[in-house]
Amino acid sequence: MPRYDIVTIEGDGIGPEVAQAAIRVLREAVGENVLHFIDAPGGAAHYARSGDVLPDETLRLCRESHAILHGAAGLPEITYPDGTEVGNELHLQLRFKLDLYANVRPIKLLAGVGSPLAARETIDIDYVIIRENTEGLYASRGAGVVLRNEFATDTLVVSRKGVERVARFAFNLSRKRDGAPRDGKRRVTVCDKANILRSYAFFRAVCQEVAGDYPDVEIDYAYADAITVHMLKKPDFYDVIVAENMFGDIISDLGAATVGGLGIAPSGEVGDTHGLFQGAHGSAPDIAGQNAASPLAMILSGALMLDWLADKHADEALAGAADRIRQAVATSLSEGHAIPRDLGGSASCTEVTDAVCRALG
Amino acid sequence: MPRYDIVTIEGDGIGPEVAQAAIRVLREAVGENVLHFIDAPGGAAHYARSGDVLPDETLRLCRESHAILHGAAGLPEITYPDGTEVGNELHLQLRFKLDLYANVRPIKLLAGVGSPLAARETIDIDYVIIRENTEGLYASRGAGVVLRNEFATDTLVVSRKGVERVARFAFNLSRKRDGAPRDGKRRVTVCDKANILRSYAFFRAVCQEVAGDYPDVEIDYAYADAITVHMLKKPDFYDVIVAENMFGDIISDLGAATVGGLGIAPSGEVGDTHGLFQGAHGSAPDIAGQNAASPLAMILSGALMLDWLADKHADEALAGAADRIRQAVATSLSEGHAIPRDLGGSASCTEVTDAVCRALG
Ligand SMILES: CC(C)[C@H](C(=O)O)[C@@H](O)C(=O)O
Ligand SMILES: CC(C)[C@H](C(=O)O)[C@@H](O)C(=O)O
Repeated sequence: MPRYDIVTIEGDGIGPEVAQAAIRVLREAVGENVLHFIDAPGGAAHYARSGDVLPDETLRLCRESHAILHGAAGLPEITYPDGTEVGNELHLQLRFKLDLYANVRPIKLLAGVGSPLAARETIDIDYVIIRENTEGLYASRGAGVVLRNEFATDTLVVSRKGVERVARFAFNLSRKRDGAPRDGKRRVTVCDKANILRSYAFFRAVCQEVAGDYPDVEIDYAYADAITVHMLKKPDFYDVIVAENMFGDIISDLGAATVGGLGIAPSGEVGDTHGLFQGAHGSAPDIAGQNAASPLAMILSGALMLDWLADKHADEALAGAADRIRQAVATSLSEGHAIPRDLGGSASCTEVTDAVCRALG
Repeated sequence: MPRYDIVTIEGDGIGPEVAQAAIRVLREAVGENVLHFIDAPGGAAHYARSGDVLPDETLRLCRESHAILHGAAGLPEITYPDGTEVGNELHLQLRFKLDLYANVRPIKLLAGVGSPLAARETIDIDYVIIRENTEGLYASRGAGVVLRNEFATDTLVVSRKGVERVARFAFNLSRKRDGAPRDGKRRVTVCDKANILRSYAFFRAVCQEVAGDYPDVEIDYAYADAITVHMLKKPDFYDVIVAENMFGDIISDLGAATVGGLGIAPSGEVGDTHGLFQGAHGSAPDIAGQNAASPLAMILSGALMLDWLADKHADEALAGAADRIRQAVATSLSEGHAIPRDLGGSASCTEVTDAVCRALG
């Protein structure tokens, strides 16, 4: 009997292709009877058919399952009456409704992948960005005010509870993770603009209080502008970075770009109860159905899901499987046979998936 | 008789060294009797002596002069009672009081400078970021609310007038600048998160309206997260980028990092009447007084000041001098004799300045 129910929302564009690829790899890595995948509808195309971007039944399945695997959502032509894209809603609603407060974005340069940073041969990039995922500027989503077409305002909201829990998440992660910066220290870097806004000063102050419970982890501070420079010039200084929602959104894409791009960047969004995993990329409708997308971000997000399940359910076997998947991706990349197009190769989605499965076998 | 009064606020840390370097180069480039430099106090050390970060007399001089040249301000130990740094205030007050609504940050890779981007030999990086400099999230500076130490809020404010003028500035700049993206098009890229917040959707909509008056300039859109990826992967796509204050703050530092860092990045902050010019770097008190700082950002900011004065006063001679300064910096860098420390060389502030003056002569 499978032990874990995984809801799969394949979504739009390349979503189904990459989700299927991840499922193949996950099955290969953990064996047949461990994960039970349940397909559930959602996304822009589903909205066009049904008027619902996130059906109640899908939300219910998400609440009742052990984890959620999501391909991607969004189609440029499917918009709300006000012109905004429908696809993002699936994702944003799941974040808020399931209280997925920590967005986990590992930034790791794998052997065989070209970083756009020049000194890539010698730079060891291996850190994690934790983006607060339920408040900050995103709290104002849908609530901004536009007055007489002359002014618009939105509100940045930072709460003690919100910062405390995400800061604890970051410190706990620093404690348990293997990767460490070049000086060997465990370190949480707080990314803010405490010099400019009280909300960010508050964010920093709460992180500083939480740090008191983690004397073994160094706390470090960087302004959101300055950190972009450091991420290019001294990426090997970082261990875990924690940031407000909007800053986290920006720097986690930047981090991905330094290690090969969104097509290889995994993402996990987790709370105390639920976890959603998907590649950091979008639905790329322009290349959908052509077997051209890279499944790597999604496959690595599957590994992140196993890590999270392993931790939550004290299941060592899953942790081993997650490591084997990452190892298999690294092996297939460094062998150079199955390099996806976004990394400069010509392998199809299926060929990349085959190669990872072979490396696993 | 000198034709232009330039107020010089040397400020703190390396401010005086780099400001003096820029003054030497400016005198050399435009001749003795064109610019009249007036030294005015301001900054953190001045605050420590007098209780005033921006004395009234300095502000008056700024209002009455043709332009302002600023070294840098800020000393970590000089803080307000609430612990925030005093130095930034000088800068922020000048922005708001003189209505310096466009922060101009040229992002240009000079020959002889190593970009951290791998393919630097083949990449032509030459675009300008225009950061809105008087509203956006910065409108909330000093006005955020912290409630019972449980919540903090700040307000993002976007006004039609504020966006219109900065968008016009960006489109006008695209029209007149030489640098153009690899496809030869004039282009203004609007950087926002219109998909998430109404204020950013409003920012985008107003830019789009303004674009109607510039049929010869292409308008393009990028989300603030995605643009960080593009800036690393396709910098030669960009011509002019316009962004809300906080996004502009972040991406202009990132842009600087792709072309050698803050030590070579010039900055101009201009409105309809006043203009303030300074390097994009801070006051670096750790290396102050050691003749170790790079004066290049400040020297190039001096050239930017000449561009601005030339435009405003229809003074071709100044425009020529600005180009000669940029040429001299490029020559001295590509000769490789006087490379400052932050670019991997060992030349002192004076040696770098000497080399630029020689190349000018
Ligand atoms: C899909 C969209 C709502 C989103 C965001 O802005 O958070 C995306 O950029 C992300 O990082 O997941
Ligand atoms: C000095 C400081 C107030 C500032 C800012 O946040 O705007 C700095 O980062 C800049 O870019 O000029």
